Amino acid sequence: MSRNTFGQVFRFTTWGESHGPALGAVVDGCPPGLSLTEADIQPFLDARRPGQSRFTTQRQEPDAVRILSGVFEGRTTGTPISLMIENTDQRSKDYSEVAKAYRPGHADYAYDAKYGFRDYRGGGRSSARETAARVAAGGVARLVIPEVAILGYVSAIGGDAIDPANFDAAEIARNPFFCPDPAAAARWEALVDGARKAGSSLGAVVECVATGVPAGWGAPLYGKLDAELAYAMMGINAVKGVEIGDGFAAAANTGEGNADPMRPGNEGHPVFTANHAGGIAGGIATGQPVVVRVAFKPTSSILTAMPTITREGEATELFTKGRHDPCVGIRGVPVVEAMMAAVLADQKMLHRAQCG
Amino acid sequence: MSRNTFGQVFRFTTWGESHGPALGAVVDGCPPGLSLTEADIQPFLDARRPGQSRFTTQRQEPDAVRILSGVFEGRTTGTPISLMIENTDQRSKDYSEVAKAYRPGHADYAYDAKYGFRDYRGGGRSSARETAARVAAGGVARLVIPEVAILGYVSAIGGDAIDPANFDAAEIARNPFFCPDPAAAARWEALVDGARKAGSSLGAVVECVATGVPAGWGAPLYGKLDAELAYAMMGINAVKGVEIGDGFAAAANTGEGNADPMRPGNEGHPVFTANHAGGIAGGIATGQPVVVRVAFKPTSSILTAMPTITREGEATELFTKGRHDPCVGIRGVPVVEAMMAAVLADQKMLHRAQCG
Amino acid sequence: MSRNTFGQVFRFTTWGESHGPALGAVVDGCPPGLSLTEADIQPFLDARRPGQSRFTTQRQEPDAVRILSGVFEGRTTGTPISLMIENTDQRSKDYSEVAKAYRPGHADYAYDAKYGFRDYRGGGRSSARETAARVAAGGVARLVIPEVAILGYVSAIGGDAIDPANFDAAEIARNPFFCPDPAAAARWEALVDGARKAGSSLGAVVECVATGVPAGWGAPLYGKLDAELAYAMMGINAVKGVEIGDGFAAAANTGEGNADPMRPGNEGHPVFTANHAGGIAGGIATGQPVVVRVAFKPTSSILTAMPTITREGEATELFTKGRHDPCVGIRGVPVVEAMMAAVLADQKMLHRAQCG
Amino acid sequence: MSRNTFGQVFRFTTWGESHGPALGAVVDGCPPGLSLTEADIQPFLDARRPGQSRFTTQRQEPDAVRILSGVFEGRTTGTPISLMIENTDQRSKDYSEVAKAYRPGHADYAYDAKYGFRDYRGGGRSSARETAARVAAGGVARLVIPEVAILGYVSAIGGDAIDPANFDAAEIARNPFFCPDPAAAARWEALVDGARKAGSSLGAVVECVATGVPAGWGAPLYGKLDAELAYAMMGINAVKGVEIGDGFAAAANTGEGNADPMRPGNEGHPVFTANHAGGIAGGIATGQPVVVRVAFKPTSSILTAMPTITREGEATELFTKGRHDPCVGIRGVPVVEAMMAAVLADQKMLHRAQCG
Repeated sequence: MSRNTFGQVFRFTTWGESHGPALGAVVDGCPPGLSLTEADIQPFLDARRPGQSRFTTQRQEPDAVRILSGVFEGRTTGTPISLMIENTDQRSKDYSEVAKAYRPGHADYAYDAKYGFRDYRGGGRSSARETAARVAAGGVARLVIPEVAILGYVSAIGGDAIDPANFDAAEIARNPFFCPDPAAAARWEALVDGARKAGSSLGAVVECVATGVPAGWGAPLYGKLDAELAYAMMGINAVKGVEIGDGFAAAANTGEGNADPMRPGNEGHPVFTANHAGGIAGGIATGQPVVVRVAFKPTSSILTAMPTITREGEATELFTKGRHDPCVGIRGVPVVEAMMAAVLADQKMLHRAQCG
Repeated sequence: MSRNTFGQVFRFTTWGESHGPALGAVVDGCPPGLSLTEADIQPFLDARRPGQSRFTTQRQEPDAVRILSGVFEGRTTGTPISLMIENTDQRSKDYSEVAKAYRPGHADYAYDAKYGFRDYRGGGRSSARETAARVAAGGVARLVIPEVAILGYVSAIGGDAIDPANFDAAEIARNPFFCPDPAAAARWEALVDGARKAGSSLGAVVECVATGVPAGWGAPLYGKLDAELAYAMMGINAVKGVEIGDGFAAAANTGEGNADPMRPGNEGHPVFTANHAGGIAGGIATGQPVVVRVAFKPTSSILTAMPTITREGEATELFTKGRHDPCVGIRGVPVVEAMMAAVLADQKMLHRAQCG
Repeated sequence: MSRNTFGQVFRFTTWGESHGPALGAVVDGCPPGLSLTEADIQPFLDARRPGQSRFTTQRQEPDAVRILSGVFEGRTTGTPISLMIENTDQRSKDYSEVAKAYRPGHADYAYDAKYGFRDYRGGGRSSARETAARVAAGGVARLVIPEVAILGYVSAIGGDAIDPANFDAAEIARNPFFCPDPAAAARWEALVDGARKAGSSLGAVVECVATGVPAGWGAPLYGKLDAELAYAMMGINAVKGVEIGDGFAAAANTGEGNADPMRPGNEGHPVFTANHAGGIAGGIATGQPVVVRVAFKPTSSILTAMPTITREGEATELFTKGRHDPCVGIRGVPVVEAMMAAVLADQKMLHRAQCG
Repeated sequence: MSRNTFGQVFRFTTWGESHGPALGAVVDGCPPGLSLTEADIQPFLDARRPGQSRFTTQRQEPDAVRILSGVFEGRTTGTPISLMIENTDQRSKDYSEVAKAYRPGHADYAYDAKYGFRDYRGGGRSSARETAARVAAGGVARLVIPEVAILGYVSAIGGDAIDPANFDAAEIARNPFFCPDPAAAARWEALVDGARKAGSSLGAVVECVATGVPAGWGAPLYGKLDAELAYAMMGINAVKGVEIGDGFAAAANTGEGNADPMRPGNEGHPVFTANHAGGIAGGIATGQPVVVRVAFKPTSSILTAMPTITREGEATELFTKGRHDPCVGIRGVPVVEAMMAAVLADQKMLHRAQCG
């Protein structure tokens, strides 16, 4: 099944290919009465938009979102919100090579194996361009959870990590890497430039923290908040790993080292003296910040020719000629934030359904 | 919402608490005509069963599964298969302490925050005992995918990893750790014994490899095979991280280093000369082995008292007196295998639905 | 797919065959903190229970329900509630005839066509015995909607309808037909007796009225309250038609004749001066009583031999020798009520999810 | 929840309001490789299109469908198919009256009760205009089930039914009523004209027959083919009743009268000598024609003023000034056919998923 819908009660369905006329998302189940215009969504699309620095793909897309339904006199009506983004820079180029052979590391072969053929222009449906639709839907989701603040940033590129001691949230918007550590941002400039010039690419780690999530959101046992987040993040293009809280580091720890002790806080809420758990216990939010870490692989499109096969099964070599991100993880930040918002909006509403 | 159903067309719903009369799973959507008796499921429950070595909890449960419906004359009928496991060793003990205060690292506080109260006996629904129901359902799922072989094992305990050079699948059944490296198994004996005697606990990493998954299973974009696996694994008790293929290591790699080149193979299938991707591209299986790595945190139940609060918000200290696993990841192996089987059975059927 | 789950956020999954050891329902998503014991459910099972008069099947089943999970100290915990009913009167008889040939009007042939074989003992999964599980689940659903009163009754048997002028709700419990019209009840005694003695059977119409449903429950456009009710009712064994409000009579009416005018009522709520719509407009409850009418076909099991074919495709004749209801619609009343309760509980929770 | 998605594996999500810029459907899960262009869908939209005779609303809409995604080189790719229809005749008119008061029989009050406000222009989301999106999606669904022929027609208007003896399928396209009985069509001309001139409206019954549905599609017990059809049909605007096969007539029948005897046919398939069941037994298709009957209420928009209330709860009177169908059931025929196609496409794929 091609399942292009995300979420249970707050849900969105995306459509569109890299080189079709447009792409979009239909957001369903949004609470009524929320103030919503294109201006509420556009900033997040702008943050994700390519072509803003030399560290991302040079494809130029305004990515201007239009609201086609579900809003009346500036407020959501509770009916489906259709969001559409036109494609304007589908450069006409020669796709004959990609049509005939499979780019290694891309979904080309897998799509052919599944569907028997594929739209090879710019990656078709498997293009990272689809993430624009996620970001648009996430812009609506944020309105559903005003109590939550979501902060995403890149914490490592090509294995070079930020120093937590340098963490400064205000820095994130000041460099083209969504990097909260100015020293790391400076190093990454050379690092990513080097990869770009070498026709190579680099992986990255994106962290995302949601503060203000009330204790109680999420649900055991097959609708756990952490499982929903893992599902949401692992479904983003190029993602290969997801951690909640300490993640794999917890697997190397002891019970004492991994404990999150509690002491009395205000209004009956506990104060936790650590957050190894990343804000989730038993699949339910504890009221601490929800912390997710996401591994993006290096862009598969590189200028180094790699052995591959043609659709007819003959050996050949291929390298990618198009415009590509030297580090796709960078532009992953607004996408990770959008998926965080979508999960939390859905969980808020599901919690309200069961527990009033 | 409390969502206790896993899967789309091959689905199971679990129920039961640690100290209730029984627990179970209802498997729905199973193909008809498969040969099935209790003996097909019991071995997997036996592998997960506690009390088999000093390295797991001493709770004694036969975990004998009964099939109550959905099978006629030894074959599945296509109607729901009700599996039930009676609880026999719910030791009567004094729960007054746990009833009044929250065990740090457990779901106690989160359940109370969500539901207003909780079944505190042995962790209630949040007990790892529920994983018996998953394992039973996974036993049915395996019958749906005879083309696939699933192999799970522990690859690290407390940060001490196996040496891939020592990998020997036959070793896995020869030690109480599901460890494929005899040298590591020997080391872990002392390691886990030390933790056990100290009243401490250790985290672990479980790897699971599925070979024989045909290219084409899975689906873009919100039903990706990797996302479904991440969802399945992150929903297991105590899991904090999931990787597909190289996972977080890919985030530290370059495009060339992370490439999986192809060359011509038999019958038009490619031969991949690497498997950094863990057998999945664009959310779709490539025909390579599907590789998942799962991080289990150390058991939260330890003998060291930790600061916590009571239900009334007063400061107190608590340590766990009951029977517990010094390393819950060990018994996670059959659970990870079961979830792998459940995901693949579902994806096989979904693929058949759309692509015939 | 064999889909044995009903509902979105308040959901239940049923399992079990007519001649298996037991049948049951797993209720998931129930709000926490509701007072629940077996005694809350048993009266509805008793109302549905066979063998209470000569007008229903003589199978004797206590239909005693057990709660296996999801309740702690007499209250729902928010986790799945497993309900089990043991089968005790699976009379051992000779099924060789039914095993070899298809009973006309039954699901025998269809099951074989779908699944390749079937559990032929007493109808297996297609037996009306499964409705006990629905009734049990409906007993839980009623606790979720204390603001709603549900009243079901038989309004016609074999084409002989009640006279609305004689309607007396108190009569329903006073006769074995759930009939609100004492004159009709008297007539039906002879009518059903005649059918029973002749080895024949009769169809029936069940009406169900839910009062107290607040305006706003339900949702356009593919989750309409009337569509959900139609789905719920048409899924009951032997049902062939569903009407909301005036139903097919509306199709013979004019716009003026079918109008439900409004005038001002208390607290801003309108008073409707008619209820042709059956309490639903645009898929959303209007606050009027929700009215559903359900057509039950005559029991297919009759003593008159009918031409049919064997599994090998040979011509034969078959009549049913077992114990059967001369009018299966009678015992349909508690089932229709249960499905009404399940739909409304789900819709209440879904409305709360979106609209707070 | 606002649930605007229909179907399980073949699914579509619709969006759009009567007076917004456009409306559309996103079809998900469509099998790959099907030949599809706008020309495959447009004829069904043309059949539903208003303004083609004086018996339907005079709103003029070309209802030209555009395919925005999911098709490459004339074939479906297996990814979501976005279908869009622009609104061109949203006549600017004075909506102040409708904005302030509730039209009786419309969804105005219910939408306000649910969402707190509503898009009152032309009925907003509750307008029958949405059915264009269903018809477009149904056009795609038909391609999935080439083995099935679907035939819909009006069988009664305002209580005046066709004579089955006059049934001639070729007549359906020859009159503006989708009427298979030329004598009835002649009578209806006067009947509907009378209602139109009187500012009144009439109800209608639509029948739909699907031949070629293989035995085995559908599934017990909460995914029954008849329940899915009831859900699909009852969700269409203005529908108040659904029958399968004999429907309510079965409730007035005896077991002998309602039997569908079988005799041996070709290739092991039975020949049924009657079809009271409408082609479905136990929720599963029997191979006979699937027969559904759908009751449409008279259009609520009439020129007779009816008592109602304002949003402030004051008494007032209202009649509808806009362009409206004197008998909305007429244009219901392509919509009923579309929903039949959507259900069958989904059930075909679900059957394939489970039973191969």
